[in-house]
Amino acid sequence: MSQNATIRRSIVLKRRPGGEPGPEHFELREDALPEPAGGEVVTRTIWLSIDPYMRGRLRVQQTYATAVQIGEVMTGETVGEVIASGDPAFVPGDVVVGARGWQSHCVTPADRLVKLPRHGAPLSAYLGVLGMPGATAYRGMTEICEPKPRETVVVSAASGAVGSVAGQLAKRTGARVVGVAGGAEKCLYVQDALGFDDCVDHHAVDLRRELAAACPDGIDAYFENVGGDVQAAVFDLLNPFSRVAMCGMVSQYNAVEFPPGPNLGFVVGKRVLLQGFIVSDRPEKLAEWRAVAAPWVADGSLVHREDVHEGLESAPRALAGILGGKNFGKLLVRVGEDPR
Amino acid sequence: MSQNATIRRSIVLKRRPGGEPGPEHFELREDALPEPAGGEVVTRTIWLSIDPYMRGRLRVQQTYATAVQIGEVMTGETVGEVIASGDPAFVPGDVVVGARGWQSHCVTPADRLVKLPRHGAPLSAYLGVLGMPGATAYRGMTEICEPKPRETVVVSAASGAVGSVAGQLAKRTGARVVGVAGGAEKCLYVQDALGFDDCVDHHAVDLRRELAAACPDGIDAYFENVGGDVQAAVFDLLNPFSRVAMCGMVSQYNAVEFPPGPNLGFVVGKRVLLQGFIVSDRPEKLAEWRAVAAPWVADGSLVHREDVHEGLESAPRALAGILGGKNFGKLLVRVGEDPR
Repeated sequence: MSQNATIRRSIVLKRRPGGEPGPEHFELREDALPEPAGGEVVTRTIWLSIDPYMRGRLRVQQTYATAVQIGEVMTGETVGEVIASGDPAFVPGDVVVGARGWQSHCVTPADRLVKLPRHGAPLSAYLGVLGMPGATAYRGMTEICEPKPRETVVVSAASGAVGSVAGQLAKRTGARVVGVAGGAEKCLYVQDALGFDDCVDHHAVDLRRELAAACPDGIDAYFENVGGDVQAAVFDLLNPFSRVAMCGMVSQYNAVEFPPGPNLGFVVGKRVLLQGFIVSDRPEKLAEWRAVAAPWVADGSLVHREDVHEGLESAPRALAGILGGKNFGKLLVRVGEDPR
Repeated sequence: MSQNATIRRSIVLKRRPGGEPGPEHFELREDALPEPAGGEVVTRTIWLSIDPYMRGRLRVQQTYATAVQIGEVMTGETVGEVIASGDPAFVPGDVVVGARGWQSHCVTPADRLVKLPRHGAPLSAYLGVLGMPGATAYRGMTEICEPKPRETVVVSAASGAVGSVAGQLAKRTGARVVGVAGGAEKCLYVQDALGFDDCVDHHAVDLRRELAAACPDGIDAYFENVGGDVQAAVFDLLNPFSRVAMCGMVSQYNAVEFPPGPNLGFVVGKRVLLQGFIVSDRPEKLAEWRAVAAPWVADGSLVHREDVHEGLESAPRALAGILGGKNFGKLLVRVGEDPR
């Protein structure tokens, strides 16, 4: 590499984790940042998003996306600033979302990038409340849970990037919204800051009893982020004609063998809808959600919270933490200076 | 009772079965058939339908309908002939469907009865292919499975009253249809008479392998009637965006404790739809289905088969048999003479 070359730092997969992923499964690689080819854009990364789905990319067998290969750069959505462009639609200084990679700099086909407005929400919001997690909550709540006024809606991982938006959307429909979160501090936040009607700590000695007490009229809709014991407790309380948005089951993402699940007799008897979904199947929903939610973010009525780790090298540990529920709010890595 | 009174024979619940129900859980009761009050109609029963859902009515805890109480007449849909009427809309000689009970005669509010056409399908068809089982297949296949041409659709209990119609409906859409049935004779019938593309015997030593061989392109829609091992084998082969109509899980209807079910991670990853439904939630679908299917029954293009037990007293044993898959086709009890 020439003396003047910019060094690109990338975190690549070194070996696949059996259970919990950690720094030992990744390694830092440095190379010279290439010039963009025609149609490519080079960005310096400002924010990197850490999300639970990333654990799935570390498995050999993938259900809906290609696994990251050994030696390959780990995937992840970023907000970055354009520093060189081979496409006339982008110029240095533009701030964009859509470049992917645990990298100090990304080289990306221009058609995958979306330019962010010069004035608007904080840049990090485009990876959280105005990004994929927010759009996920929007799709699951409006297309599957579809709460009606006074119905009871339960949201698991309620303080997280997806759950916090899902519950606030349900509140806007007039439903009674009950969160499930890990620990007293998160539960307090879910009620006081996010405005849920109640929140149950999933560490409770008798989760079923506490959830039943919080849902005296049963559960009409469930936004599922965690699986496991929370899922079992919620399913016991589902009402006839209830809807379950199956968004994720983070409690088992580190599992080597998946535990058995619920006997599905209740699905027939109670005419339950279980619908799995992945937001990226409907990419047009992201722009729709941004248009819906931007005013709510601007006026402060859609509350969101970030949990920021500093420096690209902190990404592997951040990922391990999110799978154990250690984060509190949307998990982000600050990779470079934010110009705003 | 007076010398001229007609004797009404009824089968009532004597005690609740722990596992398989049998004649010992029921008893015959005789009393004098009352005259109809105003708005009531008295019918003599011609055909009594035996259906798997009846097992659920014997449980104390019901998911979607009231349990039959000890000493109460067992419930079941019948076709009968009006012999006395307290309602001007019905006269003796009318043939009706909608009276309920394991009884030689039923006294029923007139508004629950539907008069059958004087010329048309055999009367027993209104309890099977043109009745609740047919309408169940229609709803599940057209509203939930929604097969597209060349998709692969699997139907369990494929030779039964519901499954046989479900599969033939799927064939009409141009899908590839694979049945699952119990034993070589039923499998042959499903392929040769019903026209399914393939049929797998659920007694196969390696059900998963046989099903995989019959579904080389995976499974896009599943009409679930049985649960258990068949469900597990089907779920392993579901394609992304597949739909599962959860109609019943007859393999566990005699279970005292329900076994665990599948881990639901696949529902997220494959964006599967699981939808429980019960046909009686949408009573208007029955008339719609009769209008759709009557020409197909008349021209012989919708194949159906009946398994007839003789005499009211055979009903308890017939019910036990249907839960074990002993019936071959729509299970009926001939209670009285059929005038057609």
